[in-house]
Amino acid sequence: MNAERRYYDPDVQTMPLERLRALQAERLARQLDRVWSVPVPFFRRKLEAAGLRRADLRGLGDLPLIPTTVKDDLRRSEEEHPPFGDYRGAPIEACVRLGASTGTSGRPTLILWTPKDLAVDHAASARGRWRWGLRPGMSLANAHPFGVNAGGWHFSHGVEMLGVLNVPSGPPLGEAHVRDVLEVWRRIRPDMYRLFGNVARTYADAARAMGLDPERDLNLRITGDHPAEQYLMVSSGLEALPLLGSACEERDGAHLAEDLAIVEVIDRRTARPCGDGERGNLVVTVLEKDNFLLRYDLEDLVRWNTKPCPCGETHRRLFYEGRVRDVVRVGDRELLPIDVAFVLYEFPEVSHPSAEYQIVRRADVLRVRVEYDPAVDAGGLARRLGERFQERFGVAADVELVPRGAVPRFAYKAARVVDA
Amino acid sequence: MNAERRYYDPDVQTMPLERLRALQAERLARQLDRVWSVPVPFFRRKLEAAGLRRADLRGLGDLPLIPTTVKDDLRRSEEEHPPFGDYRGAPIEACVRLGASTGTSGRPTLILWTPKDLAVDHAASARGRWRWGLRPGMSLANAHPFGVNAGGWHFSHGVEMLGVLNVPSGPPLGEAHVRDVLEVWRRIRPDMYRLFGNVARTYADAARAMGLDPERDLNLRITGDHPAEQYLMVSSGLEALPLLGSACEERDGAHLAEDLAIVEVIDRRTARPCGDGERGNLVVTVLEKDNFLLRYDLEDLVRWNTKPCPCGETHRRLFYEGRVRDVVRVGDRELLPIDVAFVLYEFPEVSHPSAEYQIVRRADVLRVRVEYDPAVDAGGLARRLGERFQERFGVAADVELVPRGAVPRFAYKAARVVDA
Repeated sequence: MNAERRYYDPDVQTMPLERLRALQAERLARQLDRVWSVPVPFFRRKLEAAGLRRADLRGLGDLPLIPTTVKDDLRRSEEEHPPFGDYRGAPIEACVRLGASTGTSGRPTLILWTPKDLAVDHAASARGRWRWGLRPGMSLANAHPFGVNAGGWHFSHGVEMLGVLNVPSGPPLGEAHVRDVLEVWRRIRPDMYRLFGNVARTYADAARAMGLDPERDLNLRITGDHPAEQYLMVSSGLEALPLLGSACEERDGAHLAEDLAIVEVIDRRTARPCGDGERGNLVVTVLEKDNFLLRYDLEDLVRWNTKPCPCGETHRRLFYEGRVRDVVRVGDRELLPIDVAFVLYEFPEVSHPSAEYQIVRRADVLRVRVEYDPAVDAGGLARRLGERFQERFGVAADVELVPRGAVPRFAYKAARVVDA
Repeated sequence: MNAERRYYDPDVQTMPLERLRALQAERLARQLDRVWSVPVPFFRRKLEAAGLRRADLRGLGDLPLIPTTVKDDLRRSEEEHPPFGDYRGAPIEACVRLGASTGTSGRPTLILWTPKDLAVDHAASARGRWRWGLRPGMSLANAHPFGVNAGGWHFSHGVEMLGVLNVPSGPPLGEAHVRDVLEVWRRIRPDMYRLFGNVARTYADAARAMGLDPERDLNLRITGDHPAEQYLMVSSGLEALPLLGSACEERDGAHLAEDLAIVEVIDRRTARPCGDGERGNLVVTVLEKDNFLLRYDLEDLVRWNTKPCPCGETHRRLFYEGRVRDVVRVGDRELLPIDVAFVLYEFPEVSHPSAEYQIVRRADVLRVRVEYDPAVDAGGLARRLGERFQERFGVAADVELVPRGAVPRFAYKAARVVDA
């Protein structure tokens, strides 16, 4: 692996867009054939119910004719055809790994991989990690979990494919484990870390308690959690393509793996395709996995960045904005936690070292509960924040300042929206 | 993968012993060359200090000339040449994964794998799992952890190489995780489970609390922990060959992977090779990994079973007996926990559902503390146990019966020997 190379897979990553579209069309045709040939009853039913035969689907332009599928459809298929449902693109005998979605939005769905599916996920992971600047001979410590709900496998294998020394350390599991992990980190000082926010802090605090300086002794810096960090990666989940895209050094949206998936952004009410900068639902068609999905609507909100990227990659970029179920309606505005977070990060009094906040759903007013620095004048700060929300979104805002620690912390996905 | 096939790798597993020895000799020569060519300073020093040049080592017969290496030697090498020591067979740039030993016997050593090292470990794992009866199309749930101290990767990949559906469920990590895992198991009813003793019980108890019958609803049976179970597998640790061998259906010792490692059993005082049935130290020379070890003394006690096996495998079998540091001297006898356990399992009053015991080190007498069924007469039971120990080992025994729960439980490796 040539460490000087700019792209992990230059042929694919800088492919002219028209060639990329031709590749997608060819791969889509293959997946559509499989709906009738494997067969995949769930998608066959869905297409036939929409009055579509195989011959009606001739190219990328016909894709929007296919009805979208949401996670609830997968759940129902699993309930009606236990245990795996009838939406699988590969026969169960060909599958070698099972996982489950985290079930944050209801009954967990089961995820299956064939050896080829794993290889596709790992290659997508490797491509993204190369964009992070990882190169052969470097080392990276990660704290991903590896249970039934976890994507740590994909992460680790992608890294190892690069020739990077992977240090799978696991989430902190008690004093002895933390001590062992810190001892390993101290001895090798990894070139890069990949730890979730709270996990990095847990390890850093434990290091300090042992008399170590996390940065000097472990090479561990806690990166900021500015809301723009959310734009550095986009996933379509373990069910589809866990590493759908990641940002290049321009840090202006995550480059998609358009050779592996067709990505659409659609208005969830009109089904109209969204243009550059417009917020819409992420809809993914998986092209290269045996267990594929056609027009899977993640119920996530994203925005296109269709401007050509100076880095030279041709695959388009996406900003990940949040989840449909976290949309808060205030009057006729629809707001997401990231909108609120961008405002909070203009105010160091509420965003250092991190903004800890909740949006309380109320129809008439934007209600934000946020932790603040007690050294400042609360009344003045609340007023200034409220004015800035009003100016930014054109809605009345009610800001409640609470002491540090009053907003719940989360080990994995944060819940930023709560009901009144 | 032909499911009817008796062996995972028939050519290798049924190879005539003389061909196997020739293969070992060829592979050993290659590793010895690397000591001078890579070079591997630690082993080069060790050989030269013993007055050996490359030319002095001509075949398997010369192997005993090479001084053995114990874990403390590796530790010292890491301390003197931080962080990785100078005993590595592969340059660090070629390594893609780092692990650490559990450090149960002192400062953890660092373990490195190249992609080839991982492939060798996975193939050894696959061979052993096939012996367990796993076949393509079956499913297996495992609860291995995957952190820096863990062999779960090797286990999982070995299983997946067979075309078995792997369900990596993780050790129980709180209520939500246990509930998710049980839900997955309920839906797929795995064909086989691989859970450590306490973990199986934790999941089974949680299932019962949810109104499920572990056996009927999850296909989960808790297997006994008769001491003979210890003979079903033998490892030489993540540093050497984690899946050195496993038992066939004869269940009379673990067949070694003699194509991948040269195994010796030696008397730890005289260095004389042990014959069939004699207890001695396990010494392993790793043949097929980039990060190899020459004559690594695991400080584990084993016994040969050199009788030809009716199953048709030619590779010799080994019984794993325990650790050198768990040897308890009583008079002129040396006893291991497994010796005591075999006696305890003759008595259902102290071994159902499992024998929970400790041996308290004392020079003059075998002192055993063991939990018992309170429904029986304690005085009579203690006397009968003492007589049986006397009869079995020819030493005086002092048996202390304690209530259920009085002996500490262990999440991973049990400590059966304690100081008085």
